[in-house]
Amino acid sequence: MKALARATARPEVLSDVGPFSALFRLPGGLADPVLVSSADGVGTKVLIARMLGIYDTVGQDLVNHCVNDILTAGAEPLFFLDYLANNGLTEDQKVAVVDGVSRACRAAGSALVGGETADMPDVYRLGDFDLAGFIVGLVDRGSVLDGRGIAPGDVLLALPSTGLHTNGYSLVRHIWGIGKDGDTATARARLERYEPDLGTTLGEALLAVHRCYLHDLRPVLGRLKAFAHITGGGLIDNTPRILPDGVTARFDRATWATPPLFRLIQRAGEVPEAEMLRTFNMGLGAVLAVAPEDAASVLARLPDGFAVGEVVARPDGGPRVIVA
Amino acid sequence: MKALARATARPEVLSDVGPFSALFRLPGGLADPVLVSSADGVGTKVLIARMLGIYDTVGQDLVNHCVNDILTAGAEPLFFLDYLANNGLTEDQKVAVVDGVSRACRAAGSALVGGETADMPDVYRLGDFDLAGFIVGLVDRGSVLDGRGIAPGDVLLALPSTGLHTNGYSLVRHIWGIGKDGDTATARARLERYEPDLGTTLGEALLAVHRCYLHDLRPVLGRLKAFAHITGGGLIDNTPRILPDGVTARFDRATWATPPLFRLIQRAGEVPEAEMLRTFNMGLGAVLAVAPEDAASVLARLPDGFAVGEVVARPDGGPRVIVA
Repeated sequence: MKALARATARPEVLSDVGPFSALFRLPGGLADPVLVSSADGVGTKVLIARMLGIYDTVGQDLVNHCVNDILTAGAEPLFFLDYLANNGLTEDQKVAVVDGVSRACRAAGSALVGGETADMPDVYRLGDFDLAGFIVGLVDRGSVLDGRGIAPGDVLLALPSTGLHTNGYSLVRHIWGIGKDGDTATARARLERYEPDLGTTLGEALLAVHRCYLHDLRPVLGRLKAFAHITGGGLIDNTPRILPDGVTARFDRATWATPPLFRLIQRAGEVPEAEMLRTFNMGLGAVLAVAPEDAASVLARLPDGFAVGEVVARPDGGPRVIVA
Repeated sequence: MKALARATARPEVLSDVGPFSALFRLPGGLADPVLVSSADGVGTKVLIARMLGIYDTVGQDLVNHCVNDILTAGAEPLFFLDYLANNGLTEDQKVAVVDGVSRACRAAGSALVGGETADMPDVYRLGDFDLAGFIVGLVDRGSVLDGRGIAPGDVLLALPSTGLHTNGYSLVRHIWGIGKDGDTATARARLERYEPDLGTTLGEALLAVHRCYLHDLRPVLGRLKAFAHITGGGLIDNTPRILPDGVTARFDRATWATPPLFRLIQRAGEVPEAEMLRTFNMGLGAVLAVAPEDAASVLARLPDGFAVGEVVARPDGGPRVIVA
């Protein structure tokens, strides 16, 4: 575990001190430094990982989720800590989880400075685990992304997700009866079945790693008005988090095709479209607001970005999000 | 939940921005600011809390544990985030947990800036939960406590614990069969039995809140060489974490009486003294190393502090801790 943390070291990590805690020297050079932090878990995606015996992807999910969350404020990651609680995971399985955390930290330039591994008999079923993470990043106050400048006429852009990211797993598991009674042969067989529409097994599609948008968005951060990370609650609940009062985000549903995984879920569970939009990201992991005059140049630097809608004036009592 | 967070606000909290993350303006005035962080859980103490229906103390345990951990480096808390995962906790129960977090944050001057509440059906038994926390504090690099100056002749002081703090619960639960099969009437009756030796029920004694040493130690931090927080592993495993090579911590067992709770556990479980010392804090929650010439003046400012031993030269291959 120590080697996995050391592999992420940055010069600011004062690793020679601090046995009970992690010491990180604050980088200089910002006029008005603001620390941006977030705590997250990966939900019941851990149950899918456990059934498939794949332990390293959830660590990547966790880090990428956290990196995206602080990126919504324009912050670059500084350091990360993880909390891994379990009952009866082998040493190899624990190392695989932390290896995923470490790999994603390296990719994002975040130091993995500490964490806690808790063996919790009786709280978790044998073989089960939970995973949470905490990130701290830094942004100059003058560069904080906060959406305050959003106005009617602004363009909404999106970047694709890689799958469910870390939300909607309880509904998916309910639809296919996965994980309710632990690790059953039926549930495992369902996950391991090849799905022609997906070009892979259901399990592999469900475990696809949460996409990290840091390297995509870094070159255009200065021209964004806001970045909404589409997590639990989908477009409907997450877009309003960046909008000032008085405007509505209007998404044009014809601008993107629902990826096969979401169509499969919708069909299998007979889930109404409105519930799909409120539960899943439906293929869009990041929504960006830009001034109309910046849209083309921002899109030019986002190879898989595309326009999905616009900001319009919101009448009194009108909805904050329209998907039509 | 938002009100509980707001109650802990400090001027640095930029609460008007950052819906996906928390923004905290870095206080100025330090020559070489170092961020000190720690992630912790409260172990299977959550099972005792759940059985007794007392949900606010574990939140306090969590914060105090984290505050102590960064205080070992000499850091003052800035902000805290919590992760509460559960299956079927009521809204009131969740609020009680976070109320405990909020109260302890206020007491320590830490802002509660965020957190995650995860509903995790199938990962936890109905009514079960887990709780983790993450703290960030600040210290000037020149004031970092690191134990490097510890030398033979230094005096070891201690401050009492309030009970088990957050360690040793799996052994305790094993001894009395608590929590293994969920929330049974037998286990609950055992917890609710009045223990004359304790002057309270076993359950209440086990739930005693982890002591926070911030206000005790703040006035003397400048004269400490190190602070070891006695958590999992007891004196035996935690004291070496502050010691340089070449010295041994020698504790004089006659300087403190084992509190009744630990004696009760030892008797009931027929636990050898060596295992007790390696599992529990045995009544000492904080061990401090000070130069001999500072011992009297430091003790004068610690009303319940007392001398428990000394630092001696360590022969090649000798033990790092002796309790005799």
